Amino acid sequence: MTSAAETIAKDGNAAFAILKTLSNEQRSAALKAIHDGLQSQKSRILDANKIDMQNARDHNLSASLVKRLDLSNADKFDAMLSGILDVAALDDPVGQVTLARKLDEGLNLYRITAPIGVLLIIFESRPEVIANIAALAIKSGNSAILKGGKESYQTFKVMSEIVNETLASSTDVPAKAVQLIESREEVGDLLSQDRYIDLVIPRGSNALVRNIKDNTKIPVLGHADGICSIYVDDEFDLQKAKRIVVDSKTNYPAGCNAVEQLLLHRNISEEDIKSLVQALLDAKVTVHVTPEVKKILAQTSEYIQDAAEDAFDKEYLSFDITVALVDDVDAAVQHINTHSSKHTDSIITQNEAKANKFMKGVDSAGVYWNASTRFADGFRYGFGTEVGISTNKIHARGPVGLEGLMSYQYQLRGDGHIVGEYVGGGGNKVFVHEDLNPKSVKL
Amino acid sequence: MTSAAETIAKDGNAAFAILKTLSNEQRSAALKAIHDGLQSQKSRILDANKIDMQNARDHNLSASLVKRLDLSNADKFDAMLSGILDVAALDDPVGQVTLARKLDEGLNLYRITAPIGVLLIIFESRPEVIANIAALAIKSGNSAILKGGKESYQTFKVMSEIVNETLASSTDVPAKAVQLIESREEVGDLLSQDRYIDLVIPRGSNALVRNIKDNTKIPVLGHADGICSIYVDDEFDLQKAKRIVVDSKTNYPAGCNAVEQLLLHRNISEEDIKSLVQALLDAKVTVHVTPEVKKILAQTSEYIQDAAEDAFDKEYLSFDITVALVDDVDAAVQHINTHSSKHTDSIITQNEAKANKFMKGVDSAGVYWNASTRFADGFRYGFGTEVGISTNKIHARGPVGLEGLMSYQYQLRGDGHIVGEYVGGGGNKVFVHEDLNPKSVKL
Repeated sequence: MTSAAETIAKDGNAAFAILKTLSNEQRSAALKAIHDGLQSQKSRILDANKIDMQNARDHNLSASLVKRLDLSNADKFDAMLSGILDVAALDDPVGQVTLARKLDEGLNLYRITAPIGVLLIIFESRPEVIANIAALAIKSGNSAILKGGKESYQTFKVMSEIVNETLASSTDVPAKAVQLIESREEVGDLLSQDRYIDLVIPRGSNALVRNIKDNTKIPVLGHADGICSIYVDDEFDLQKAKRIVVDSKTNYPAGCNAVEQLLLHRNISEEDIKSLVQALLDAKVTVHVTPEVKKILAQTSEYIQDAAEDAFDKEYLSFDITVALVDDVDAAVQHINTHSSKHTDSIITQNEAKANKFMKGVDSAGVYWNASTRFADGFRYGFGTEVGISTNKIHARGPVGLEGLMSYQYQLRGDGHIVGEYVGGGGNKVFVHEDLNPKSVKL
Repeated sequence: MTSAAETIAKDGNAAFAILKTLSNEQRSAALKAIHDGLQSQKSRILDANKIDMQNARDHNLSASLVKRLDLSNADKFDAMLSGILDVAALDDPVGQVTLARKLDEGLNLYRITAPIGVLLIIFESRPEVIANIAALAIKSGNSAILKGGKESYQTFKVMSEIVNETLASSTDVPAKAVQLIESREEVGDLLSQDRYIDLVIPRGSNALVRNIKDNTKIPVLGHADGICSIYVDDEFDLQKAKRIVVDSKTNYPAGCNAVEQLLLHRNISEEDIKSLVQALLDAKVTVHVTPEVKKILAQTSEYIQDAAEDAFDKEYLSFDITVALVDDVDAAVQHINTHSSKHTDSIITQNEAKANKFMKGVDSAGVYWNASTRFADGFRYGFGTEVGISTNKIHARGPVGLEGLMSYQYQLRGDGHIVGEYVGGGGNKVFVHEDLNPKSVKL
């Protein structure tokens, strides 16, 4: 018997087989159609959105969460719609020739970008995210199975109906290229469909991501922890250090790219250490300090606490930071490689050689010099948009835009060529292996 | 308590932390040292190799396997040594700038190739492979934990001792950058070390690969099945078709890139179908045919058998092939996407539009036009050497050379830049996002 999850996964796979063959014009036209469909049914969407907001209030969700749900808020709806057109206008990520090589006369090898297949994307409550993710999936030629946060369920449902109706009625993209699923249970069942689903992208709490990683053989793209560190070297500019540390901690503490660990070179003067920590205290950040830092600060405050035993492995996601001393840049690198979650780590120094040593040695997706860890973001990197941030070392790393949703295929174009005639295959013909310019290839 | 496996994995990880910071000169010099070390201790290695061969004979292993073990055979030892120098001479895969972007004045983003970390590589019995894999790992800046086939154990042991001694005594590469493990049990324990091991590369039987995939959370690069197909279109050249089909099947039937499925367009004349199948029969290939193909052949032969129920999902790895008819190129694509293992599939046609349709529609690592599936190989693609062939769609796909052993990191170089001053972070500065030429970047 075919389970519901298997049917969904198979349908996604069948839709992918068609989607994969469509041109950029066809995919982008579908995005334009989705844009128009959502725009023309704005009131239907906002009605559903009102139900979600009322449910949220009935369940006493926080005012800030209710505000996040509100699609009529400011220009959110219009921004969502123009985001779809922005994705449509991006360069075609499919079919890019990234390698071209003449193997022999009449035998040419090409490496060509190709979509991955079927993506299972699990995301949070903001209702506008579904439009962004659907647009990215279609633009990149991938099928998407979507599970949104339950708080926006009514809005998601109406929007996905409109997306499916639009795809079916007026585009070349199969309606099943975007499928919305409703329950957590379905996610669990889908995680076993590794034959049909190629990649899982969870965007949510650490617990969610960990749970998914523990329960599937499908590759998972994303991050659980975001334990970012800043190392302040002894050759540093105090004002820059204050700016960067405070921004990295307080700009959005709930972000995975917020700093959680502050490592200070042992040779920094006590005065400067006090001044740097004071900048955090002034911003109402609680510093969790080691005994030697505590001794230097020499003051009591509700914002100064003893570092807990696990303080170096802690993702606070709040106005909290661990502060410790280290011997030098090498010690900082070692500390970070041991404790960080390989997300983003920054060095503050005026010494370029030390900066290079740090960036060469730290094994994280982002290695920064004199910049806030908060820059780790697809929009800030200029990727247009992102599906998430990856701390994987396999496939995409760091903020993941369209490029991270691509695989590639090798095309070999011959004219009856066989291996038996070449060296290594039993013959004596020798390969030419002459690189061609991929940019000038027309296939 | 720290298990033996955890110690090995941790040691590999610690070695990686150093290896990651070494220059191409340091890594390549280490390869030269390994080359010299193995060369100067040739007789010690060949003595160990003789014990392996004697053991093989004592256990009544086949003459062909014993021959594969023999490192003194022909110029195998010298080829192994020169292979190390070939890898040393390759371009540095580490530190290549693949993206350079000005985010704002004084704030530049670079994407730079970086090694992955710790690789666990499980490979077959040929003793010379250890030199090749050790060379690839060091050149790419990755630590390697190696498990070779037990038939070559004595040879591996001596060679890895020499490698470790050489690394420790006369190179900047830590000795633990290459670790040999002895037992299958250790492999099992290492598969749970997902904190320290970043990638598993199994090169062996389907059963081995499947077993590894089922028992680890570490990403696995490789392939289990190699079910390759050839589709012969009705607009085709019979002589080319015969050459390609026979080469794909018989050049090395045990290879994962050998063809297992032959799909013929239904409109091909009975005469041509007979002629094509006869070429296989002449090569002593057993054809497993569907009823309609059987009817066309209209002859009995020990080499003509009824296709079994699972014939379309079969990897024969022998002088056997399934033969069936399909309606057209679309049907062929659908058949292949349903049954193939996404390794390598080829179309034989004189019609370029159909070839493009096939190559665009088939979702496999290699999509070929008028060429033998046997070309799917790192050496033939001009990668110098390969660590295996991947049927994954995440990370590296197809034959995997040095490039597939690389990840990347984002370097951000600023001068006190903070997110709070930019649009989206609370400020009103706008990002520049100006692409720079990565080739002209000097870091």
